[in-house]
Amino acid sequence: MEVKVLKNILSANDRIAEKNRALLDENGVLALNIMASPGAGKTSIIMSTIKALNGEYGIGVIEGDIASSVDAEKVSREGIPAVQINTGGGCHLDANMISDSLPDLPLDKLDFIFIENVGNLICPASYALGDRRRIIIASIPEGDDKPIKYPIMFHDADLIVLNKVDLAPYVNFDRAAFRQAIKNLNDKTPIIEVSCTTGEGLDEWLTWLKAQKIK
Amino acid sequence: MEVKVLKNILSANDRIAEKNRALLDENGVLALNIMASPGAGKTSIIMSTIKALNGEYGIGVIEGDIASSVDAEKVSREGIPAVQINTGGGCHLDANMISDSLPDLPLDKLDFIFIENVGNLICPASYALGDRRRIIIASIPEGDDKPIKYPIMFHDADLIVLNKVDLAPYVNFDRAAFRQAIKNLNDKTPIIEVSCTTGEGLDEWLTWLKAQKIK
Repeated sequence: MEVKVLKNILSANDRIAEKNRALLDENGVLALNIMASPGAGKTSIIMSTIKALNGEYGIGVIEGDIASSVDAEKVSREGIPAVQINTGGGCHLDANMISDSLPDLPLDKLDFIFIENVGNLICPASYALGDRRRIIIASIPEGDDKPIKYPIMFHDADLIVLNKVDLAPYVNFDRAAFRQAIKNLNDKTPIIEVSCTTGEGLDEWLTWLKAQKIK
Repeated sequence: MEVKVLKNILSANDRIAEKNRALLDENGVLALNIMASPGAGKTSIIMSTIKALNGEYGIGVIEGDIASSVDAEKVSREGIPAVQINTGGGCHLDANMISDSLPDLPLDKLDFIFIENVGNLICPASYALGDRRRIIIASIPEGDDKPIKYPIMFHDADLIVLNKVDLAPYVNFDRAAFRQAIKNLNDKTPIIEVSCTTGEGLDEWLTWLKAQKIK
């Protein structure tokens, strides 16, 4: 009897992620999956971007946290449509959570959706959401060895933003070692250095972001 | 027919953790499970402790990382017995990994084993290892809202070490808000503020640690 071999079957999560991506593409919305350690500055980057581009671009935000809605409230106060997902202990967002969130956002009016993942340099890397860009926010006080210790996350990034460069004078961070470690994983990933506190480098980030617009 | 109800059955992990704990107790060794975000300073605290207490106390280290052995090498250069666990993508240590590591440490000569968990404020909280103390290292540049966002981790801590206090003048960190958020979760957990860079507060940490000795 012939044995049926099933190849390239999408996981339930990947299947839902594909549907999310199709819906976003139809509406000309580019979703960015923002991943980082806790406290690296995901919300700060999103807030700085909103302050710079609000009015000029349509921006929506999906906030992922284990608990609390402090981040979605911050975003919402700027007049930006925002959905808060509480995973209730879960260490990553998944495609189904995004699928449940999209109906609450005015997709036809948006250019970008920032999906702020749960603060975690490991598990979020393994779950497709339907985004078209993966952004890793690293930060100076975390140390230059993070790409060596969390290689999967850094390997799959479309862009790495190195935040808190204003703290560089006060900590021991070897920029050359950091860049080399990333190059060893993926020599095509651009790295943009910023400080959300001083505003340094944000122009370069905004220029990169604007170039990704698909509508 | 009577239905058999099984109560309080230990999970496989909890069962192995109990065995680890029994073995450590027999040898009079106190194991500390050190958990934190990536880059909060787990290795720095361990290194500072080794430098202060080596010779006076028997110290062993189990290092957990997704990849690399940089941390175990750092510890080993100080003449301290160290085992590196690479989880190969896994986001937390589990009891079986500790059980496999203990035969490589001279338990009869040790007072303390520092188990440096994978850098992650979520998943490690759910896996017993056989330790008798759970230490969370938070750090100033991560922000004061981490206990609100990662409540399970902070709720279960026996001690919270707030590291990198030397960076407090350069970032916006509300100490009172941080302490209140922890108090709301568990009003008995002590908080010790330190800087591994300047040495500030390390005496208080060492005093706390020495008081935990069981041999």
